[in-house]
Amino acid sequence: MSILIKNIILNNKKQDVYVEDGKIKKIGKLNLKAKEKIDGKQEKLLMPGFVNCHTHSAMILLRGLGEDLSLKEWLEKKIWPLEEKMTENDVYWGTKRACLEMIKTGTTCFNEMYFYRKAQIKAVQEMGLRAKIGLVLFGIETDIRKKIEQEYYLFSKKLTNKISLTIAPHAIYTVSKENLIWAKNFALKHNLVLQIHLSETEKEVKDCLKKYKLRPVEFLDKINFLNKNTVLAHAVYLSDKEIEIIAKRKSSVVFNPCSNLKLAVGEIFPYKRLKKRNINIALGTDGPASNNSLDMIKEMKTACLIQKHKEKNAQEMPVKEILKIASLNGAKALKIDSGLIEINKQADLILIDLNKIYFQPGHDLMSDLVYSASGDCVSDVISGNEILMQNRKIEKENEIIRKSNSIAKRLTKK
Amino acid sequence: MSILIKNIILNNKKQDVYVEDGKIKKIGKLNLKAKEKIDGKQEKLLMPGFVNCHTHSAMILLRGLGEDLSLKEWLEKKIWPLEEKMTENDVYWGTKRACLEMIKTGTTCFNEMYFYRKAQIKAVQEMGLRAKIGLVLFGIETDIRKKIEQEYYLFSKKLTNKISLTIAPHAIYTVSKENLIWAKNFALKHNLVLQIHLSETEKEVKDCLKKYKLRPVEFLDKINFLNKNTVLAHAVYLSDKEIEIIAKRKSSVVFNPCSNLKLAVGEIFPYKRLKKRNINIALGTDGPASNNSLDMIKEMKTACLIQKHKEKNAQEMPVKEILKIASLNGAKALKIDSGLIEINKQADLILIDLNKIYFQPGHDLMSDLVYSASGDCVSDVISGNEILMQNRKIEKENEIIRKSNSIAKRLTKK
Repeated sequence: MSILIKNIILNNKKQDVYVEDGKIKKIGKLNLKAKEKIDGKQEKLLMPGFVNCHTHSAMILLRGLGEDLSLKEWLEKKIWPLEEKMTENDVYWGTKRACLEMIKTGTTCFNEMYFYRKAQIKAVQEMGLRAKIGLVLFGIETDIRKKIEQEYYLFSKKLTNKISLTIAPHAIYTVSKENLIWAKNFALKHNLVLQIHLSETEKEVKDCLKKYKLRPVEFLDKINFLNKNTVLAHAVYLSDKEIEIIAKRKSSVVFNPCSNLKLAVGEIFPYKRLKKRNINIALGTDGPASNNSLDMIKEMKTACLIQKHKEKNAQEMPVKEILKIASLNGAKALKIDSGLIEINKQADLILIDLNKIYFQPGHDLMSDLVYSASGDCVSDVISGNEILMQNRKIEKENEIIRKSNSIAKRLTKK
Repeated sequence: MSILIKNIILNNKKQDVYVEDGKIKKIGKLNLKAKEKIDGKQEKLLMPGFVNCHTHSAMILLRGLGEDLSLKEWLEKKIWPLEEKMTENDVYWGTKRACLEMIKTGTTCFNEMYFYRKAQIKAVQEMGLRAKIGLVLFGIETDIRKKIEQEYYLFSKKLTNKISLTIAPHAIYTVSKENLIWAKNFALKHNLVLQIHLSETEKEVKDCLKKYKLRPVEFLDKINFLNKNTVLAHAVYLSDKEIEIIAKRKSSVVFNPCSNLKLAVGEIFPYKRLKKRNINIALGTDGPASNNSLDMIKEMKTACLIQKHKEKNAQEMPVKEILKIASLNGAKALKIDSGLIEINKQADLILIDLNKIYFQPGHDLMSDLVYSASGDCVSDVISGNEILMQNRKIEKENEIIRKSNSIAKRLTKK
């Protein structure tokens, strides 16, 4: 399988890019044949696809429900009762629906954390995206371990090279210490990414201090949870000591600006302090029901705006930095070899349509992308050896929308 | 001139709307003939158009220049030197270009503050939008008064009913007290909206305290600048006493969330305190070079997110409220009879394409509009008796883009 991308703007000049077996093999003026061809001559720019480093895809079925509520109320009154009603088939279509929206807005890889993993894997495989599927642990029972183990061995055998598994204990306040330790050991044994929601609210920190006499990161470090494979989502409330620990353990953290603001968690992600310690920072939308978007382009703008505000400094989080955070850093966090357009890198690529009004007059296309554009400027998406979207068309789009809409309707029927 | 909008979703049901002489004349199931017809049967929603209550349109020619700089540096190093080079013809095309982007994202009326008013008026008339054109005062010289007077009498004679003038002294730190008083009297005499940039930075407040021994609003009130026709843009740094004064004088204030955050002005607009005193609050994008967008849909999301954060309360600024702020309240501030879909209201209307993925599954279309959508969901725009956009097509679109791009290029040529 080979793909030739002709006449694309890359590093300010028109070039061609040749992809074989899912990897970038040649860049330059190329005279080659390929099985599939995309032409960028109508002014299209080539970029690495975005990596959405924290989401709960199938929640798109619940988007718009319980608006303008706090995290606790939103979960307890609206989301959890409806999630109770969700079947495996619902999650299958919900995940496909979310993938559709991610492809349409330029995401080529995402980090998933939700239930019914078998359905998720099937959905993602059919949609063609790269993903990390989290085997989510909840609770204090030890039975859950067996379930995770079974899932791990069952799914591992069947996974294509685009999908891999992570171990994903939900949070320190929903999972017992013993299960957290078990999860950490299991991830270590199988060399898996280990992800967790962390310090999203002040309450979580206070409760942790009460229960363990330690702040959340201190507690996790005490049980050896933190290493270079650990991904911490949210991480809004962090002391300097905690940041020091994260740096030492070389863990990654995920900034979720829209969700944190929308749910009014109270604090702004401590980007500057984390960056000073060279911690790998990625970007995520969180679930599409608490954002309510999966558009990483819009997420980048909010990220920049809120960091400039926090530091009272318009130079904070410049365009170049957020673009790296939204692609390369996400790939690093997930141990994926993408985020750069270089020979032998995975061909997770997007084409940006420069004819969109956002890119006029075009003094600075990267600033236009971050501050003026929205996800609809993405015209084509390539994931490894597959073209997932061409001229904004995705296979079976209408069916996916129809099915997921009818499921969403059924779920909310009184 | 008449327009019939058929099969449109309005108040949760399919209806028709009949427009004559620029006003909404009939709503219901209608069997009527009209000169122009728009069909909404492919799932389109009817909404009042957005009112962008503070912008500097032609700055779109400079979008993307001097990214990630503070307000002072951005103005002094980048913007002002380039504005020096701008001709009347540049502003004409720049204004047309901005109107194009406003129409494409659902704005039907805007409040303008820039130079070369004759060119602006011509541009806006040709594009068909409703607008307030600010006669901008700068400086301490008294000559400026004569110029404003001349412009006022010259333009007043030629204006169509969609465009009217405002008196727009730039700010308290760039205009002398005497000129502010003159401007206020002139606006009063001719019953014009009087607008000014106010308390955008802490420095402005400090300098005012030093110079006049009063905070900015106190100073303006002392010279009787504040009344129901006054529009205060930004108004980020306000004491309780100042808010009390604004309430008493019944002036309007304009919230510019993206610009305030991007330029890192340091404070967040005191929405809750203003609202408590029943002050009319409108929404603006500010100039497209400090946002960098004219998309009021994206602006609404940022507005909601930042207010929820400020108040540490996810219920702050709910969807219903921001929709009113972005349309009806803007119309009120500008003394324009739009923002509601009711008989005899001006027909400043937009159609929203519900087939866009943002509106699926569609549990709450208004929340989808604010939190999930972008301006590209607007399919058709009606301004009074004219259809400005139909199925996203605008007359002479390519010419406007080509001309404004070539001007932007010339301006930045070394």
